[in-house]
Amino acid sequence: MDEFEVSPWNVSGKIDYDKLIERFGTQKLENSLLEELKNLTGDLHLFLRRNVFFSHRDFDKILNDLKNGKGFYLYTGRGPSGPMHLGHLLPFIISKWFQEKFGLNVYIEITDDEKFLHSENLDLNDTYRFSMENALDIISLGFDEDRTFIFLDSEYIRNMYKLSLRVAKKVNYSTVKAVFGFKDSTNIGMLFYPTLQIVPTFFENRRCLIPEAIDQDPYWRIQRDIAESLGHYKASVIHSKFLPPLTGIEGKMSSSMPETAIYLNDSPDIVKRKIMKYAFSGGQATVEEHRKLGGNTDVDVAFQWLYMMFEEDDRRIKDLEQGYRKGEILTGEMKSILIEKINGFLVDFRNRREKYRDRLDRFMYDGKLAEKMWETFYDR
Amino acid sequence: MDEFEVSPWNVSGKIDYDKLIERFGTQKLENSLLEELKNLTGDLHLFLRRNVFFSHRDFDKILNDLKNGKGFYLYTGRGPSGPMHLGHLLPFIISKWFQEKFGLNVYIEITDDEKFLHSENLDLNDTYRFSMENALDIISLGFDEDRTFIFLDSEYIRNMYKLSLRVAKKVNYSTVKAVFGFKDSTNIGMLFYPTLQIVPTFFENRRCLIPEAIDQDPYWRIQRDIAESLGHYKASVIHSKFLPPLTGIEGKMSSSMPETAIYLNDSPDIVKRKIMKYAFSGGQATVEEHRKLGGNTDVDVAFQWLYMMFEEDDRRIKDLEQGYRKGEILTGEMKSILIEKINGFLVDFRNRREKYRDRLDRFMYDGKLAEKMWETFYDR
Repeated sequence: MDEFEVSPWNVSGKIDYDKLIERFGTQKLENSLLEELKNLTGDLHLFLRRNVFFSHRDFDKILNDLKNGKGFYLYTGRGPSGPMHLGHLLPFIISKWFQEKFGLNVYIEITDDEKFLHSENLDLNDTYRFSMENALDIISLGFDEDRTFIFLDSEYIRNMYKLSLRVAKKVNYSTVKAVFGFKDSTNIGMLFYPTLQIVPTFFENRRCLIPEAIDQDPYWRIQRDIAESLGHYKASVIHSKFLPPLTGIEGKMSSSMPETAIYLNDSPDIVKRKIMKYAFSGGQATVEEHRKLGGNTDVDVAFQWLYMMFEEDDRRIKDLEQGYRKGEILTGEMKSILIEKINGFLVDFRNRREKYRDRLDRFMYDGKLAEKMWETFYDR
Repeated sequence: MDEFEVSPWNVSGKIDYDKLIERFGTQKLENSLLEELKNLTGDLHLFLRRNVFFSHRDFDKILNDLKNGKGFYLYTGRGPSGPMHLGHLLPFIISKWFQEKFGLNVYIEITDDEKFLHSENLDLNDTYRFSMENALDIISLGFDEDRTFIFLDSEYIRNMYKLSLRVAKKVNYSTVKAVFGFKDSTNIGMLFYPTLQIVPTFFENRRCLIPEAIDQDPYWRIQRDIAESLGHYKASVIHSKFLPPLTGIEGKMSSSMPETAIYLNDSPDIVKRKIMKYAFSGGQATVEEHRKLGGNTDVDVAFQWLYMMFEEDDRRIKDLEQGYRKGEILTGEMKSILIEKINGFLVDFRNRREKYRDRLDRFMYDGKLAEKMWETFYDR
């Protein structure tokens, strides 16, 4: 059981995602469901076509609510413990895709309280600074400023606190101990925090879909146990895999080891150097051997990143895979392709980010949805 | 050890207040301290002259801060679980006395969150209703509307949350388990709540004095352990005894047994009936025996209430005591004196209450201190 671990505060080992579905009691995101979605949207996002989102809870009910016209809303979040890297973008990119396809509201919680409480070395000043930087990163992906509300827990608490009390009254220490592995030495802020991650699942009187990395699933187990007794819907979730660390396909990228990740503000030179130097190769020891034996795309991080995120073209990704396996494409070539893709993405991203800088207030305070949310005090 | 129990959620048995000082590790409120205070004020409130406030933490430091001109502020609170009775008024009456003597700021926390979380049968609607009724009761004692801020946790959370996180980060489950007797079945709202009772002790950059019934002391043990590490003062506290229940001097008045208490809205007839019917007598079985043997003022609740709260005149209370002990005053006479005093107090109180009704907003939102407090977001 312990060859890998996935929890909100630790991801390590080589993750077996099929086993994780079993362990967490979630459902595989089957092709039949994706086909149903495709019938409604016309196409499927790369993350769905390539099983980056691989697991779900009640996604079938979301599809039903789409078909019967009730609709749904999206909710996801970010723990502002530092600058964001590419792996952090997955839930936001897919949320934006859903928003565009169906004109949906998106709620993005910045959990500055949780990060402050959890990190010995983070002060509230730090979490505030990261919150604002991260929020700008997120909206720059192209969210709709009148249909997206991005909020800091420490600010929006005034509208959420009463509802968080209703949640808290339903959850005892035994439960959070069992679900999150909290201990007697856990601070009482961490013990209460789960209520604030749960509250946004009750923001609208319809089902919410949470696109998130699978490590966040424990919160929704509690949410789904208590939601109906509070007169709300159980959360629906789609779970993503982790974009593997540059240095190898175990665990997830770590902020304490910058060589494992590409940050959104890494310059083209740094991107190039990191990938050339650190990206774990699935190739052979020499060019000659590689030409003869071929490489292993399953462990080649450059290929995996292209597959999971950066090579949109399904035909081209298949060519890259076969070429690499046959030894026609070398590791260095694969890396170069990735570098070009990432730098293209990041240049575009940073240009957009500059334009979004003075629009952050729209998403946080005075856009159409934000304004409505600041007027809404959640009590039940 | 267990012949009586005093905790924030249970008070029972015949309380030995000297033992409680030992058990809680507080200090006796010695005459020498009271004399020092009297030198500054000119007189002492009944509650101080008669040892109703009998115990303290760091009250000597408060006296020093008075003498050196630094001053201090007052903080106390109310759990809005129902209508208020006479026993609930003690900390507010003494707070008002201190406010008048020294022109001090008073902060009054209405802990609607805690009462909702703790009481199976209270909804947030109930705690809100009681909060507003109780707040009006409290200010009607005659507080200064520009120097008093009365707030509901569920509303003022927006200004306290960040500081409550700083507190929470310093307190773990072991501590609240040991201090409050919390269990695995305790809900996670109750586990976090102590942070919000602690935050107001950091409202000003000087010492705060908390006049409260002794059952609230556990909170200040935690506060005093962490205050200095957060750059604040340890709380000073003066602890009151409980006004004994009408029905006998054990435990405290209970909302679930209305015959044990006089409520602020009890009519003169009800006051009369309750005292005549229920007030535990220290007298003898017959008038004849009483005339011969005399009564016991230590257990006679009518006398105790006069002594602790309603007979201001020190000479008169001595006469009443001696008269009763000698059998010259009968139980019925003692009760009549008390009934007259209480009804006089309550009629005045309710007249003032009507006048204060439209001034509650001054204390909560737009008086001088309240306005300043709503503009202050406590972060450290």
